[in-house]
This record gives sequence, structure tokens and C-alpha cells, in this order.
Amino acid sequence: MNNRHGRFITLEGGEGVGKTTNLNWLCEQLTTAGIPFIRTREPGGTPLAEAIRGLLLNRGDETPADITELLLMFAARAQHLARVIQPALNAGQWVVCDRFTDATYAYQGGGRGQDQQVIEQLESLVQQGLEPDLTLLLDMPVELASQRVDQRGQQRDRFEQEQQAFFQRVRDAYLQRALEHPLRFRVVDASLALPQVQAQLTEYLQPLLSEWMNEVSD
Amino acid sequence: MNNRHGRFITLEGGEGVGKTTNLNWLCEQLTTAGIPFIRTREPGGTPLAEAIRGLLLNRGDETPADITELLLMFAARAQHLARVIQPALNAGQWVVCDRFTDATYAYQGGGRGQDQQVIEQLESLVQQGLEPDLTLLLDMPVELASQRVDQRGQQRDRFEQEQQAFFQRVRDAYLQRALEHPLRFRVVDASLALPQVQAQLTEYLQPLLSEWMNEVSD
Ligand SMILES: Nc1ncnc2c1ncn2[C@@H]1O[C@H](COP(=O)(O)OP(=O)(O)O)[C@@H](O)[C@H]1O
Ligand SMILES: Nc1ncnc2c1ncn2[C@@H]1O[C@H](COP(=O)(O)OP(=O)(O)O)[C@@H](O)[C@H]1O
Ligand SMILES: [Mg+2]
Ligand SMILES: [Mg+2]
Repeated sequence: MNNRHGRFITLEGGEGVGKTTNLNWLCEQLTTAGIPFIRTREPGGTPLAEAIRGLLLNRGDETPADITELLLMFAARAQHLARVIQPALNAGQWVVCDRFTDATYAYQGGGRGQDQQVIEQLESLVQQGLEPDLTLLLDMPVELASQRVDQRGQQRDRFEQEQQAFFQRVRDAYLQRALEHPLRFRVVDASLALPQVQAQLTEYLQPLLSEWMNEVSD
Repeated sequence: MNNRHGRFITLEGGEGVGKTTNLNWLCEQLTTAGIPFIRTREPGGTPLAEAIRGLLLNRGDETPADITELLLMFAARAQHLARVIQPALNAGQWVVCDRFTDATYAYQGGGRGQDQQVIEQLESLVQQGLEPDLTLLLDMPVELASQRVDQRGQQRDRFEQEQQAFFQRVRDAYLQRALEHPLRFRVVDASLALPQVQAQLTEYLQPLLSEWMNEVSD
């Protein structure tokens, strides 16, 4: 039992779609089920990676060039993988993560227009084949998501400040990723009320949970 | 005259070989010759890139994974190129820089053992073919360089703390780079007294300087 790998679950979607809200709920479910897990986020997840996050998100005087932004994202990810995600999975813990590489395809690729092949190059360099077991994409129209960000009432960071057209490209790129990776992705209609969103999440989590429980009882 | 490109000169070598000392001298020569130039350094050269430098050099609790270190180096370089080096060269200024990509081959490649092909990939992604016009490699035995670092008497940073075997690999990798790029590199015997080091530098700078003066008088 000790040498089995944890599961790696990522939550994705634009600003305000409910990632943090539903990650809270997901962690409660895992706790109730008695599954050992860690909760983390990107960019960030280690003190060094969080410092890189600070450079990426703050609205300072100096804007990172697009290629700088992309390299910083993968630098933070490399550190997060080496120090947190890989060790946890190897120790049999599940990892639930608020954003991961699909966000890079959506934001730096779709949003900023960075070459997809360059992102693929960096992905394979940094991840060496590791991928999430399940990616839950919370999807909704960008206008609605933007209203929810406003309701949340915090100051917007450098990404949250972008224009509607940027977020439309982000949403489109996310949906494209889901089409290209149908086994790993589940698209959740996140415009619904929370109970209905969570009903979808419950359904999509079910196969991973039963598989895990079966392994335990073996 | 306004549409000609500046020249890009880099100074390379391990810790304590005299890069900063000789860069001071080089800048005096350029000033005397009336050549417009900027002086800069890597990692760093913009506020954001200097913040990345801080993450790279400080001896904090969390060591960057080798791949994180490499990506941070190129993130800082991408920003430095986009915001400082390219604009200066385009405006006809010379750029003299304390370390550049050869240092990545020497430290992350030679020192840390990172795959040279990965470095080449990142180099072509970030530099898009741009290379220094002249690279002055200050070379000396690592024991002597280490004595000079001690004499300088500042606290050692995360790289300066490394062991002798690390610096031997760095020196070897630098000399290998010089062999592979004979047109761009000049190897300076930096173990000699300053006047003799500067006599070598004067000789190696001469072709660039005369070429520039000829262009001006055209
Ligand atoms: N299904 C929902 N219906 C209505 N409001 C929601 C729903 N899910 C989340 N919210 C609210 O929307 C805002 C954004 O949610 P949040 O979880 O912070 O999104 P994200 O982390 O994706 O940016 C919060 O104020 C949250 O309470
Ligand atoms: N040719 C030389 N002979 C003796 N000492 C030197 C010479 N060049 C530099 N130094 C001294 O060696 C130390 C390291 O030089 P420095 O320019 O700081 O090296 P780097 O910038 O390459 O680390 C300084 O104390 C400097 O004054
Ligand atoms: Mg959130
Ligand atoms: Mg120096």
C-alpha cells in the first residue's frame, strides 16, 4: 500500500469561475473519505515559487516581456514539482492544485498569443511526462465570471486586470485543451448554483475515488 | 550614422578573475574614445531581472532545483534583452555586460551538469540568434581566483560558496566554449598584473574600435 502513487487533480478556469470555492469543497470531500492529500496552487506552492508568483502578479512599474512571463511560470512550476508535487505523489498523497500547465496554455498561449510549440517544449522539459490524473475545468461565460470577480471585491492583480477579449481567448484556449485531452479533462458548467456545480464534480471524481478505494482493499 | 547598431561585448570568467575590475577600465576606454555605451550585468540589468537575481543568489532556506535555476537565469535574460540590451544596440549604443549566456553554459552546464542541449534550446528561444560581438574570457587557475575572492573580503553568495571542483568544471566549460566559438571569444590570461591584463584587452578590443571609427568617418 505504501508504494502506490497519489492522484494529481487540477482545477482550471478563468478568474472568478469558482476554483477556490470548489477546491475548499473538494478538500472536505477528501478529508471525509479519509484520503491523504495536500492542497496547493500555481504559480506558487513553495516559498521560492511564491516569490516568483509575486513577480508575476504584481502590477509594478516594469511589465515582464511575454517570454519572461512564460519562463517565470515554468521556473515556478519546476520548483513546485521538484519540492512539493512529486514528493507528495511518491509518498502516496493526493495533490489538489489550483491551476497548473493548462493555465499556461490558456493565459500565455491563448491570452498573450505565445507559440503553443514553445509551451510544449517547456512543458516536456519541466514535467518529463508527468500530467494530472484529472483536470476539472470550470467553464462559464466571461461576463458572468467578471461579475463574480467584482462581487468578490478584492483588488485585481496583473492578470485579473486584463480586458474581456483577453478572457475570451483564455476561455477558448481552455475549451480547446479539453477537446484535445478528453481522457484527462472534465468540463463543468460553473455558471450554475453551487449545489449543481458540486453534483457535477462529485460525478467526475467518482471513478478516481472508487479506483483508490479498491486499491486500498486489495 | 543613426541606424547603425551598437556593439555587444561580454566579460566572462569565474568568481574573482577580475571581471568587475576590468569592466571599470573598459568603460573608461570607451568614454575616452567617445563611444556611447551602457554598462550592465547578468543575472540582472532591469529591476525585475535584479529581483530574479536576488532569488538566484541569496542563500535562503530553499535551494532552487537545477532546472528552476536554469529557467530563472533565462527569464532574467529574456527581460534584460527585451528592455535594455536590444533597445540600446538598436539605438547605436555599445553594451558592455558582466556575464551573459556563456556563464550559463559554464555554471549551469559545467558546474551543475545540466544538459547542454537544453541550454541551447533556451538560448535560441530567448536570444533569437543574437550573440555578443566579442566575449572576453578572463582565465586563471581556480586556486588563484579563490584567493582573490577572499582578499576582496565580501560575504560569498550562493555560487561563490561552491567547492573547488565546481569551479574547476566552470573553468573547463568556459575554455571549451572559447574553443567552440573562436571568432567571438578572446581568452585573456588574467593571472598577470593588471597592466598586462589590460594590454591584452587593448589588443582584443582594437579591431572592434577601428571598425567603429571607420564607420563614423564614412
Ligand atoms: N456557483 C456559484 N454561484 C454563485 N457564486 C459563486 C459560485 N461559485 C463561486 N461563487 C462566488 O464567485 C466568486 C469567485 O469565486 P472564486 O472561488 O474566488 O473563483 P476563482 O478562485 O476561480 O477566481 C466568489 O465570490 C465566490 O463566492
Ligand atoms: N590583475 C589583477 N591582479 C591582482 N588582483 C586583481 C587583479 N584583477 C583584479 N584583482 C583583484 O581581485 C579581486 C577580484 O576582482 P573582481 O574584479 O571583483 O573579480 P570578479 O568581478 O571577476 O569576481 C578584487 O579584489 C580585485 O581588486
Ligand atoms: Mg481563486
Ligand atoms: Mg564582479
